[in-house]
Amino acid sequence: MSDRKMESKTHAGQPISFRFATRDDIPVLIALLRDDDLGRQREADDAHSLGQYEEAFARMSGQPGNRILLGLNGDEIVGMLQLTIIHGLTHQGRSRAQIEGVRVKGNVRGQGYGKQLFQQAFDIGKAEGCFVAQLTTDNRRADARRFYESLGFQATHHGMKRSLCDEPGV
Amino acid sequence: MSDRKMESKTHAGQPISFRFATRDDIPVLIALLRDDDLGRQREADDAHSLGQYEEAFARMSGQPGNRILLGLNGDEIVGMLQLTIIHGLTHQGRSRAQIEGVRVKGNVRGQGYGKQLFQQAFDIGKAEGCFVAQLTTDNRRADARRFYESLGFQATHHGMKRSLCDEPGV
Repeated sequence: MSDRKMESKTHAGQPISFRFATRDDIPVLIALLRDDDLGRQREADDAHSLGQYEEAFARMSGQPGNRILLGLNGDEIVGMLQLTIIHGLTHQGRSRAQIEGVRVKGNVRGQGYGKQLFQQAFDIGKAEGCFVAQLTTDNRRADARRFYESLGFQATHHGMKRSLCDEPGV
Repeated sequence: MSDRKMESKTHAGQPISFRFATRDDIPVLIALLRDDDLGRQREADDAHSLGQYEEAFARMSGQPGNRILLGLNGDEIVGMLQLTIIHGLTHQGRSRAQIEGVRVKGNVRGQGYGKQLFQQAFDIGKAEGCFVAQLTTDNRRADARRFYESLGFQATHHGMKRSLCDEPGV
C-alpha cells in the first residue's frame, strides 16, 4: 500500500481514502489520540511530549510491519489505528495482525469511517499473510466491544495487562 | 541479552537459564508447542510443516524486537514464550511487551519455570522501555488465567480475535 492511496465510501456515503502515517502527521495524531475519554488522561500535547512522540514514531519506523493506518476524507485525517504484523511460530508459522490505538475523530463518528478503516486493515493483514486480527479493548469501553463485534471480532480471550513501571507484588 | 546467558533458580530450587531461540531450536519448539491440549490441534510435526516453521522464524528474525525467549535447565529447553516489543505512539510514545505462544514442558510443570521465564521477559521489556506487558489467554484456559494473575497480570480488557481466513459476515 505504500505507493497507492486506496479509496472507498462509508455506509453514509462519505468518501474515505487510506494511507500510512508519516512523521509530519504526528501533531494531528496526538490531537486525535486525545479526542477520547481515556486518551485525554494518557496523552500530552506540550512541546516536550511532541519530541517523545517523534522518537516513538522513529522507533516504530525501525520495525518492519509496524505502521499507523490513516483514514482520510479529502486531506482531513478522520481515523487512525496502529497495525502491527507480528510474525511467529504458533499456528504453523502464521502471522497475526495486531491492532492498537484506534480512534475516529469525535465530530464524524457514526458515519462508518471506523468500519472502512478496519476493512482496510483486514485487507492489508490478509495480503501480508495474517490468519487473525486481534486487539484488546478496555472493559470500560462498552460501546467499543459492540463495535468490534459488528466487525466480526469475538471476545474469546481475556486481555491481560501487567504494568512494568512498578512491581505489583510479583 | 544477546551475549549473556542469565541464570536463576525456581521456587522448587531448579536451575533455569535463559537465551533467545535460534533456527536450530525449531524442531524442539514445535514439540513444545504441541505439548498442550490446544496446541496439539493447531501445530503439525511433519517435514513439510517444518519448512513452514523455518520460514516463519526467518520472518520473525527480520523484525527487530520479535524473539522467542527460552528457559533451560542445563541444555534442555523447559519453557518458551514469544516476546515482541511493539513501539507505538499511545501512552506518550511508550512501548509494549507483547507475549504470545507460552509453553512450559508438560513433565516439569509446577516447578516455577514459567514464573522465572516471565520475570525474565518483564526484565527485558523494562530494559527496552516498555510500560506494560500484555497477552491474551483463551477463555477455555482457566488455569492459565490464575497463573497470569499470580504474576501480576489483570484481566482489564477483552481479548478480541477475528479470523482473516474467511469472511464472517462483515
